[in-house]
Amino acid sequence: MDSITVFAPATVANVACGFDIFGFAVDNPGDQITLTASPEPGVRIIDIIGDEGRLPREANRNTASIAIQTYLQHINRTDVGVDVVLRKKMPLGSGLGSSAASAVAGVFAINELLNRPLTVRQLIPFAMEGERIACGSAHADNVGPSLLGGFCVIRSYQPLDVIRVNTPASLYCTLVHPDIEVNTKDARFILKNEVSLKNTITQMGNVAGLIAGLMTPDYDLISRSLVDVIIEPVRSILIPEFNEVKQAALENGALGCSISGSGPSMFALCRDPQTAERVGAAMQQAFLSVGISSESYVSEINQQGPKVLTTAEVAS
Amino acid sequence: MDSITVFAPATVANVACGFDIFGFAVDNPGDQITLTASPEPGVRIIDIIGDEGRLPREANRNTASIAIQTYLQHINRTDVGVDVVLRKKMPLGSGLGSSAASAVAGVFAINELLNRPLTVRQLIPFAMEGERIACGSAHADNVGPSLLGGFCVIRSYQPLDVIRVNTPASLYCTLVHPDIEVNTKDARFILKNEVSLKNTITQMGNVAGLIAGLMTPDYDLISRSLVDVIIEPVRSILIPEFNEVKQAALENGALGCSISGSGPSMFALCRDPQTAERVGAAMQQAFLSVGISSESYVSEINQQGPKVLTTAEVAS
Repeated sequence: MDSITVFAPATVANVACGFDIFGFAVDNPGDQITLTASPEPGVRIIDIIGDEGRLPREANRNTASIAIQTYLQHINRTDVGVDVVLRKKMPLGSGLGSSAASAVAGVFAINELLNRPLTVRQLIPFAMEGERIACGSAHADNVGPSLLGGFCVIRSYQPLDVIRVNTPASLYCTLVHPDIEVNTKDARFILKNEVSLKNTITQMGNVAGLIAGLMTPDYDLISRSLVDVIIEPVRSILIPEFNEVKQAALENGALGCSISGSGPSMFALCRDPQTAERVGAAMQQAFLSVGISSESYVSEINQQGPKVLTTAEVAS
Repeated sequence: MDSITVFAPATVANVACGFDIFGFAVDNPGDQITLTASPEPGVRIIDIIGDEGRLPREANRNTASIAIQTYLQHINRTDVGVDVVLRKKMPLGSGLGSSAASAVAGVFAINELLNRPLTVRQLIPFAMEGERIACGSAHADNVGPSLLGGFCVIRSYQPLDVIRVNTPASLYCTLVHPDIEVNTKDARFILKNEVSLKNTITQMGNVAGLIAGLMTPDYDLISRSLVDVIIEPVRSILIPEFNEVKQAALENGALGCSISGSGPSMFALCRDPQTAERVGAAMQQAFLSVGISSESYVSEINQQGPKVLTTAEVAS
């Protein structure tokens, strides 16, 4: 093939109690990338659609093209030429893993275009390099689930150890993105470097409970475990009406509700699609009560990771 | 019945990464208690065998009798009279949940003697009261698995939330108790009150990995997750030759090895009984190289919790 278009899913990192170690993928939203083979070696950004001109077009500054470049260097194929068109289908700086989705779409697409020299799991480090550009450190809690699908645990970074955990057949995610912006670096900067042993113990209990709840499955246990005593109390001050929005989600039947990634988006997990829709409407209403508009997305947990939308042979 | 003898299992608390939240029960060692109904109201310690006279004989200072008293008060049966004979079948102050086993044996036995007014799970708080006497705070990471059997997560203390997690069909525990003593209160006192966020993240990753590894089951994941970066580096200084003993366990095929509870006993988890026996011998040899004798116990994970050994009707 000469051309390929790939979708990669948005992701919810942290998932309340699992700061830097938990993340899951959703079916909606996500990014699209189109790669077209070119006789001229190198990676070029031809166009980015949907970012209102905010993302860098230089190939060595863009998260998707850097991921592709790093991959091509690793497999010794810097002779390959590829033109990139990126369609941002989700808000930037939203806490929905926007940069990870672009990087994942990029490496997944180039690996397909070259007939899969590497397995999907082997692509994680190259997508992480894209993340390093976007947020200053190479995190895997968005990249992992965006690439592998499902709910992932980043058990360790050195060496990298990403585990995929089964989730209940019926589990829905509501995402609400308020039209405000939180910088990922700021959101990390305000965190304290020390945690009390007491809070560490509480958080570990919820981490264990959430994994056991997802794998059993046990919805009540999932619900009791979606509690974050370390990060949420600090970061939630960056999100206006956080407590009211969370309360609205819980009162409308969500299993739990917290910050998606570093925010400002918020996620809720629900047992069924009707509840997820109702929860989304209630969360949007709570934001609107202080004049903040928002977008809401409802989907199942994405189990597949990226998918090929179209391929084409270009007549020579 | 008028008399009952109950066995309650020893337990390994913490299990490397899960300080204060993980614990599992073993088939060997354990404590035995015999309760005999008496017409005279109140709980009396008639005899304690195997403690070399070190445990208090006063009913309001002994962990087993306090658990029974608290239970009788709760069910409004202070009219009941019971004589207690406790057979300590494991070392005291060993990190094997000795006080928990006595308390659990006591409450389980009195509940059986009275024809089960409460469920086994409902007995946890009364056994915890016994623990409070023994170590100054009412922990559940020994009491929980000793009562429920299996591998337990103490997700939360307020409210108490004890979750039982499935373990692989073939999973063996080696326990080695060196003939030295570590006071539980001292072992807690030397811990720092603050943990770095970085270590908290690492520990949470291992907590999640261990639960996923046990439930999948995935022995390699269990092995990679049996790592403690918070407590073991501090407490291991109280155990002579700790590093050498641990190394001996790992070199002989253990999935992991760490301190049992607050020590000085050490545990190792193994895939099969032959490995568990070999690991035990190697650990004992490492202790012996610096002149420390030890006892070794090998058993499966106890799935049942306490069991009734004998009951008797006393002719009136």
